[in-house]
Amino acid sequence: MVVEKTIKFRRLIPIIWKRMLKMALLSAIIVVPIVYFDLRQFTITMQAPLILGTAISIFLGFRTNSAYDRWFQGRALWGDIGGCTRNTALLCSRNKEAYTNYKTGKESKLAAIVMPRMIKRSIALMWIFNKQLKDLPPLEYEGLDNLLEKEEKESLAHSVNPSLQLLFNQGRDFRIANSEGQFVDGEHFEFVAIQREMALLMTRCNGLKNTRFPTHYTYFTDLFVWLLVALLSMSLPGEESAGYWSIPIAVLIGWIFSMIEGIGNFMDHPWTNNRNVVPMDFLTRSHEIEIRSFAFGDTDLPPAFEPVDGALY
Amino acid sequence: MVVEKTIKFRRLIPIIWKRMLKMALLSAIIVVPIVYFDLRQFTITMQAPLILGTAISIFLGFRTNSAYDRWFQGRALWGDIGGCTRNTALLCSRNKEAYTNYKTGKESKLAAIVMPRMIKRSIALMWIFNKQLKDLPPLEYEGLDNLLEKEEKESLAHSVNPSLQLLFNQGRDFRIANSEGQFVDGEHFEFVAIQREMALLMTRCNGLKNTRFPTHYTYFTDLFVWLLVALLSMSLPGEESAGYWSIPIAVLIGWIFSMIEGIGNFMDHPWTNNRNVVPMDFLTRSHEIEIRSFAFGDTDLPPAFEPVDGALY
Amino acid sequence: MVVEKTIKFRRLIPIIWKRMLKMALLSAIIVVPIVYFDLRQFTITMQAPLILGTAISIFLGFRTNSAYDRWFQGRALWGDIGGCTRNTALLCSRNKEAYTNYKTGKESKLAAIVMPRMIKRSIALMWIFNKQLKDLPPLEYEGLDNLLEKEEKESLAHSVNPSLQLLFNQGRDFRIANSEGQFVDGEHFEFVAIQREMALLMTRCNGLKNTRFPTHYTYFTDLFVWLLVALLSMSLPGEESAGYWSIPIAVLIGWIFSMIEGIGNFMDHPWTNNRNVVPMDFLTRSHEIEIRSFAFGDTDLPPAFEPVDGALY
Amino acid sequence: MVVEKTIKFRRLIPIIWKRMLKMALLSAIIVVPIVYFDLRQFTITMQAPLILGTAISIFLGFRTNSAYDRWFQGRALWGDIGGCTRNTALLCSRNKEAYTNYKTGKESKLAAIVMPRMIKRSIALMWIFNKQLKDLPPLEYEGLDNLLEKEEKESLAHSVNPSLQLLFNQGRDFRIANSEGQFVDGEHFEFVAIQREMALLMTRCNGLKNTRFPTHYTYFTDLFVWLLVALLSMSLPGEESAGYWSIPIAVLIGWIFSMIEGIGNFMDHPWTNNRNVVPMDFLTRSHEIEIRSFAFGDTDLPPAFEPVDGALY
Amino acid sequence: MVVEKTIKFRRLIPIIWKRMLKMALLSAIIVVPIVYFDLRQFTITMQAPLILGTAISIFLGFRTNSAYDRWFQGRALWGDIGGCTRNTALLCSRNKEAYTNYKTGKESKLAAIVMPRMIKRSIALMWIFNKQLKDLPPLEYEGLDNLLEKEEKESLAHSVNPSLQLLFNQGRDFRIANSEGQFVDGEHFEFVAIQREMALLMTRCNGLKNTRFPTHYTYFTDLFVWLLVALLSMSLPGEESAGYWSIPIAVLIGWIFSMIEGIGNFMDHPWTNNRNVVPMDFLTRSHEIEIRSFAFGDTDLPPAFEPVDGALY
Repeated sequence: MVVEKTIKFRRLIPIIWKRMLKMALLSAIIVVPIVYFDLRQFTITMQAPLILGTAISIFLGFRTNSAYDRWFQGRALWGDIGGCTRNTALLCSRNKEAYTNYKTGKESKLAAIVMPRMIKRSIALMWIFNKQLKDLPPLEYEGLDNLLEKEEKESLAHSVNPSLQLLFNQGRDFRIANSEGQFVDGEHFEFVAIQREMALLMTRCNGLKNTRFPTHYTYFTDLFVWLLVALLSMSLPGEESAGYWSIPIAVLIGWIFSMIEGIGNFMDHPWTNNRNVVPMDFLTRSHEIEIRSFAFGDTDLPPAFEPVDGALY
Repeated sequence: MVVEKTIKFRRLIPIIWKRMLKMALLSAIIVVPIVYFDLRQFTITMQAPLILGTAISIFLGFRTNSAYDRWFQGRALWGDIGGCTRNTALLCSRNKEAYTNYKTGKESKLAAIVMPRMIKRSIALMWIFNKQLKDLPPLEYEGLDNLLEKEEKESLAHSVNPSLQLLFNQGRDFRIANSEGQFVDGEHFEFVAIQREMALLMTRCNGLKNTRFPTHYTYFTDLFVWLLVALLSMSLPGEESAGYWSIPIAVLIGWIFSMIEGIGNFMDHPWTNNRNVVPMDFLTRSHEIEIRSFAFGDTDLPPAFEPVDGALY
Repeated sequence: MVVEKTIKFRRLIPIIWKRMLKMALLSAIIVVPIVYFDLRQFTITMQAPLILGTAISIFLGFRTNSAYDRWFQGRALWGDIGGCTRNTALLCSRNKEAYTNYKTGKESKLAAIVMPRMIKRSIALMWIFNKQLKDLPPLEYEGLDNLLEKEEKESLAHSVNPSLQLLFNQGRDFRIANSEGQFVDGEHFEFVAIQREMALLMTRCNGLKNTRFPTHYTYFTDLFVWLLVALLSMSLPGEESAGYWSIPIAVLIGWIFSMIEGIGNFMDHPWTNNRNVVPMDFLTRSHEIEIRSFAFGDTDLPPAFEPVDGALY
Repeated sequence: MVVEKTIKFRRLIPIIWKRMLKMALLSAIIVVPIVYFDLRQFTITMQAPLILGTAISIFLGFRTNSAYDRWFQGRALWGDIGGCTRNTALLCSRNKEAYTNYKTGKESKLAAIVMPRMIKRSIALMWIFNKQLKDLPPLEYEGLDNLLEKEEKESLAHSVNPSLQLLFNQGRDFRIANSEGQFVDGEHFEFVAIQREMALLMTRCNGLKNTRFPTHYTYFTDLFVWLLVALLSMSLPGEESAGYWSIPIAVLIGWIFSMIEGIGNFMDHPWTNNRNVVPMDFLTRSHEIEIRSFAFGDTDLPPAFEPVDGALY
Repeated sequence: MVVEKTIKFRRLIPIIWKRMLKMALLSAIIVVPIVYFDLRQFTITMQAPLILGTAISIFLGFRTNSAYDRWFQGRALWGDIGGCTRNTALLCSRNKEAYTNYKTGKESKLAAIVMPRMIKRSIALMWIFNKQLKDLPPLEYEGLDNLLEKEEKESLAHSVNPSLQLLFNQGRDFRIANSEGQFVDGEHFEFVAIQREMALLMTRCNGLKNTRFPTHYTYFTDLFVWLLVALLSMSLPGEESAGYWSIPIAVLIGWIFSMIEGIGNFMDHPWTNNRNVVPMDFLTRSHEIEIRSFAFGDTDLPPAFEPVDGALY
């Protein structure tokens, strides 16, 4: 997520100079003959570019809206995954209390192993799913060794979907903890609800990842911007005043619409590992710090992530 | 779902050339007499086409928005159906554990038959509902034999709604598995909730299928685009410069609005078996692979679907 | 719901000719003196109609959006009522199984009467509520005799709200079926949830029926369209070219905006018994067919409803 | 809620004539010197008013949308409060059955007192909350004596929030009814859910009441409309034709935008006791009639409310 | 939250005069040479500024919408947190009744300590979370001593997240109260649901706080407004009439768009401790007053907060 408040043009220029040059060429091919040979009979009035300009504006308004919604939906999904992890910790941690079997009233040694493991696994799941969404190696995060037992971590290496595998493993530990009388009725339902919620949230994150904004919209928006540059180049020199001056004006309008479209394209993919990504590392680390502090009383906590070069990852 | 990043014009031209030709004819019928006989008194100023252009732009903005929403609603509904299937697998699978009756503590042979059957049936249900939504033969998918018992599959052949029939059958097996003590309380509610959710999701998918975008909107949007071409043809030759040149400009504007409208029409039907369909085959297969891998440890899994000619089905 | 793909003008003309004539008169009253007596000093420039045109376009965009949302909300509410009915059938039907009391393990004769009655009553409720929303006699549907016991049907004749009465009756039968041990815990909650959901959905349907789109918006939108026709009539003859020709152009623009507004008015009322109604008959019949087939194995099912004259009811 | 289909101008004129007069003055101050002294060099071209007109149109589109959403949210909240009341009646009424304690199988005399009291109290709560939202004396409704026991009603007179007090009282009666074995498990949860839902809905209604549409938006929208009138007055006389004629045109445009803004302001406050209020009296009375009819078999029911002077309260 | 109905310009001018001056300079740099040296060949026609004006209007419409949504989402989140607190009070308070253990039928002394503590803690949580969201010292609120036990308050001083710590503490007290038989089944689930809801709501509030509106949108919107001022300065002097007069007009249009953008920036941050903040102090205090009155019968209640200098905090 970009957190700096200005955009550096040195970042932009490498991305856009080719397109700008092509637009200038297109405009020049139309404007130069009209001005040089004075072919004013081939110019057009301002209706066509105005109508097209309005149409593109509204189309880009829709496009911007959708891109923004997709990005914030991604952000909200990751926020809710964090909420589920917090909830797992609320359910499975004991605040300086023993893991008492509520049916027998005795302390359960097994639960004291299994339930902290579930809390840690839920954090590990966030890290692994984070990497999967970014198309990075899923087990890359160096802190995984603190969160997963060695054997479990190794078994993930060959899994078709390691984060989903962990969700299945949570189910197994839940059955153990439950048979140890760790969940008074309500909390017990709650855990099942968390599993359901996680299954759904993960499906939705994947849905956002593999369903791109429809190609038709991006392709034709782009085409219409080029047509607008062409129409403007036919229209601007038609009046007395502007001559070759029409070229930069047409390119400027083209650049503005291209920028709006480009930001939309950039926002569209909340999981892509670039400056615009949902700050999953930052959020997962925050949850890791808070949960380890409250659930286990850990004090040697890893530091929070800081923005790198104006972007938070 | 179209996944290629450009639209091939060779695909577009067969669809649109007739309409373009008609628009050119309409424009010519108006422009040629005006220019040839110099009937400038019958031209109009730019207000009417500008106002109409703005109105159509906003109308198409609404139309595009709705079409996009319908498509993504379809995508989201199918995603949630997948989530329900995942959840069924989470509830009914045992991760290398026995199917223990939690009331008696003994292993249940009947549950070991019924519960894997339920998982497989939920995948079969996705395949069959997928085909029903596309108006294909419901039992067409060749992999059904691995997912449904022969007898059950045959009984579907004469059903008025095979996927809904399977939902009823899930209910019957649930009652068996429950009486075998397979669901600790919470999971038990959860299965009932999945049944409810599936009934609702399937009703909504059908709702999207049989409730088209209102005819009034599509019909009049189309009509207004033709009127705009006519008004432009009356207006463009009114100024000194443009003469016959007005015809291609009017057609170009008409084409642009027709394209925006056409994409909307195309997006409107997320279940139609064309290049734009929600990639139900791909998604169902993904769930099939993951669930068979995690719930049964299967290793001879069918391959994931790949895009065909730039579209994922 | 209109299902034909074109709108027949013969249907439109009786509705709109008066308004068109009035607009032509208004326009003529302004244009004729200006052109005939050459009163160009009373014409205005194009700013005022352009600004008003943009404002009306955006206002109508909002209006169209709201109308469409209302219609689809109506459609969705009815879809969810259907989903609740499906769910009632899933809960209360036994798939060729006996109605076993899960507490005693014995078959319950009373449940075998009550629970099918509940399924049928839920379908009857849809039919009766359907008629109530359309302001038709609630007990009009001829198939009610198959769905309700004679005595219960008669008691509805004097009810202040027959469909709500049936919901209360469902509650009574639920208490009987429950005391006969027909609902394992989860399903039991589920039925209570269906009752709650139905109470809410029915309240919302009524809310949509008795809360019209605000009069202020419809009234002033209409007024602004007339003002636009007037302003256009003052503005169009101001330029050299268009003379009497201004009248049909102003009327055309007026007609277009009136059409957009008119469609919105038409879409606004999803329960009105006209061509645009949510196809409640069709949907209720579909549920009746499927549920009777799956829950009771009935084979002499009533036929599905077909569109009449291009509209589905 | 306004239910008549036309707006009477005699209602409007007292509200708007001052503003119109001020706009005419503003316009005249600019137009008269320009025309009288022929100061055309101080006129401006049409770009500035067109751009501003478009900007205001879009801004007012947003404003209209928000106002409409707020009003309908208010309507929906009240509808859902009605749904909760219906649900309370469904849960607590017995349809000509006795109030049997499901644990002992005996009739409970205490429940036969407490549970009808709960139903009546839920209707009383709607009446009192209705008055509180309208800033009227909370206990004003004359029918309260039929709905609340005298002692309870009197205790409300000194309460900081009488409707919330009743919600707490419902909780107390619920605990009594529950200990009398009146709620089979599911219904029991349901009542707790109703309490939660009511707490939330009432918080949201208050939120809508005490969070106005942001002052910044209303204030600047208004200012921009005045600026548009000024810019139009500078721009309209610049062309040859319109002279003093510019004044009414500028005022007309100003009036149109003021009307759109004014309707928004009017719609913004769904609980204000004016012609535009959510028809809470009407809806509460409807629920009172239906519930008293179904739950108690009452026949001497109060009449439904009718519109007064074209508005339903 | 600003509650006064007008905006004082003396507040605005210090914020905007620099920007206005820069815009005037930019405009003058372009306009003066054109007018002074009569360089009309470098002016442009009105198409470019009109198209850009429309594009910016739509872009700002989107921006305004998003900012408003964010603010109201913040308001709604805080409203729901208040709803959860109300619910905690409904569940844990006894209305002049004893804290009876429903399993033993005896009064529980422990519960009479723990459960009022839970109610007070939930109010304390609101105060502390309120301060955390505003980046103020979390324990600043002087009334905390009435709401938290001394020991608990001190333990928060070193917590990484004091409000989340309190949520964990609620869980511990819940387990005590539950083991004392204070929650009949349904209420018991309800409390678990409140914990879940609070975890989610707090995550979402933080999400709103640390996810700003994308920099790309704010940065480029700003840039486009400057470009519009430049284009207007090139375009306005091109016509005969306006000369130096073009400068204030261009600046006026620039100011209007800057204001719309600026309000959006201001609304974007519902938790920032300025005049625009969600009135968390006011709302928390209201809940404190009501809950202390109803749950404990307290009468020496703190006063409600009043607006300060036209804003409610």
